[in-house]
Amino acid sequence: MSADYIDQFVECADIIQVGARNMQNYALLKELGKIHKPILLKRGLSATIEEFLLSAEYIMANGNNKVILCERGIRTFETYTRNTLDLSAVVAIKRLSHLPIIVDPSHACGRDWMVSSLSKAAIAVGADGLIIEVCEDPENAVSDGKQTLTPFCYKKLVKELRVLAKAVGRDIA
Amino acid sequence: MSADYIDQFVECADIIQVGARNMQNYALLKELGKIHKPILLKRGLSATIEEFLLSAEYIMANGNNKVILCERGIRTFETYTRNTLDLSAVVAIKRLSHLPIIVDPSHACGRDWMVSSLSKAAIAVGADGLIIEVCEDPENAVSDGKQTLTPFCYKKLVKELRVLAKAVGRDIA
Amino acid sequence: MSADYIDQFVECADIIQVGARNMQNYALLKELGKIHKPILLKRGLSATIEEFLLSAEYIMANGNNKVILCERGIRTFETYTRNTLDLSAVVAIKRLSHLPIIVDPSHACGRDWMVSSLSKAAIAVGADGLIIEVCEDPENAVSDGKQTLTPFCYKKLVKELRVLAKAVGRDIA
Amino acid sequence: MSADYIDQFVECADIIQVGARNMQNYALLKELGKIHKPILLKRGLSATIEEFLLSAEYIMANGNNKVILCERGIRTFETYTRNTLDLSAVVAIKRLSHLPIIVDPSHACGRDWMVSSLSKAAIAVGADGLIIEVCEDPENAVSDGKQTLTPFCYKKLVKELRVLAKAVGRDIA
Repeated sequence: MSADYIDQFVECADIIQVGARNMQNYALLKELGKIHKPILLKRGLSATIEEFLLSAEYIMANGNNKVILCERGIRTFETYTRNTLDLSAVVAIKRLSHLPIIVDPSHACGRDWMVSSLSKAAIAVGADGLIIEVCEDPENAVSDGKQTLTPFCYKKLVKELRVLAKAVGRDIA
Repeated sequence: MSADYIDQFVECADIIQVGARNMQNYALLKELGKIHKPILLKRGLSATIEEFLLSAEYIMANGNNKVILCERGIRTFETYTRNTLDLSAVVAIKRLSHLPIIVDPSHACGRDWMVSSLSKAAIAVGADGLIIEVCEDPENAVSDGKQTLTPFCYKKLVKELRVLAKAVGRDIA
Repeated sequence: MSADYIDQFVECADIIQVGARNMQNYALLKELGKIHKPILLKRGLSATIEEFLLSAEYIMANGNNKVILCERGIRTFETYTRNTLDLSAVVAIKRLSHLPIIVDPSHACGRDWMVSSLSKAAIAVGADGLIIEVCEDPENAVSDGKQTLTPFCYKKLVKELRVLAKAVGRDIA
Repeated sequence: MSADYIDQFVECADIIQVGARNMQNYALLKELGKIHKPILLKRGLSATIEEFLLSAEYIMANGNNKVILCERGIRTFETYTRNTLDLSAVVAIKRLSHLPIIVDPSHACGRDWMVSSLSKAAIAVGADGLIIEVCEDPENAVSDGKQTLTPFCYKKLVKELRVLAKAVGRDIA
């Protein structure tokens, strides 16, 4: 996303997502600091935890403190998964910052059959939320079909997550 | 550990651990395949999931199929944690192999205050067990004190893990 | 740099550099494809060679084929150097693409005493040019002083590079 | 290689190579410190420069100071090359240590057509030597054929390296 399009987003979007590849697009971050919509900031592919938090600072220092962080896997030598989900980053960020942090297991692993287990781990580790890709017909999805759940699997997962959340003293709305 | 010392271990140890730095010490793996003690094989610092499983094969192909795998964090660019715990490796290995896989959160993160959350994530993701460093007096420990729990914290954690395990349909002995 | 500022650059700059952190800022790349100034595209911190070339495609597909690539080190586990200079990327890109590729040894290593040797390696490996940080007074430089050469060292280096270039059948203008 | 086989090597080998996967096999390193053959120590796949030098210390501290270091590429996210050749490690080690360091471009890149350029870069950067895979018939080689030069290409390369070495004030025996 470019700073040029922010006006359009402000009008029609409830929340604005900054993708991993733009986590250090400082011109964009500064512009997002001047609006009042919540910003979902995804961690860059090889961003350290410190750099991730500093990117959030760019937004907040310009006046918008509605920032939600999102761990979505980092780039490592491992090729079996699309990226390597770094759940220790969630634990670190809960201590270093007051900002909410959610987890995107779908982009992290790139494989539908891994999403359920990683979602549970994310809730157990303390994540404030999840973004999960869901689609009626994953096989014919325009993009990312291999990491996408059907509504049936998603509903089953949410049920299981409710039980798990309770067991770690939390509640899923 | 060298192949030279295996005899001494066989006599007095219940289980023999191969450290991460020896995961691809093939001469050692072959010798461990000829004995009948359980082998705890730790993942190498930059070993892929495939290489990890192939190292286990070296032991099993020589006759010893009592192999337990251990995820203990991989080396990435992140410096805040000692290593980066790769819980997706647990999910992958549960599908690719029949071998049990446990998680070492202490060595993965290198910080005591992270161990509890990562242990919960490991159980939630499906790990078959945990190795957790515990010491009466972590501050004066000979090594790894910073990642070590006191018995008090450990007991509290085990209680919480029992509740969590139940919530994901499992039991902690 | 944001797409908003391109007009100002077009007027007063001879060449426009896209920094490593914006290598995948696609909105910016598309806008840069519509102008006629040469673009110096730096490799992202964890961009693969393929992604690097695809980012150049974004510019060229929009009409501007004056793209110069720049290898400036990638992010690895190594902490002794600021980044890890990947000279094999130069060899690969000379085969995969017709685009010129230059090397930035200063940002890659982050240490002034390494710049000379790495510059020689870059010319020997086939790089089409170098960007070297030079400053009258590195110790008091506003930024990156530790990786900056004095004019004296720079002149000595250029002399040595001329001899080296000749030895590999090339000429330095 | 296991410590068990050292005796056989001592009798018939001129030099003993420790492969990358055994760089931190401390039991082996200690045994190699007790003999008087030169040891060629290859850098581990994800070993830092510091760890590499400390492994050499294990050999020297036990009495054998004939250690030759070998940079052979490190593991990164890049998949186009087999590993990523880290020539800045050569520069660093020339400053941090008195030990000779050579470069293995063949294993680093895994592609025969890259070997010549990377060899030149290695000499230009200051490496004390090269290990290059050569085989009469690379296509039918038992292993590593894709990264192997024919004797014809090798001879051509050596000629070019002699010219280059002279240009950087060095001599190839």
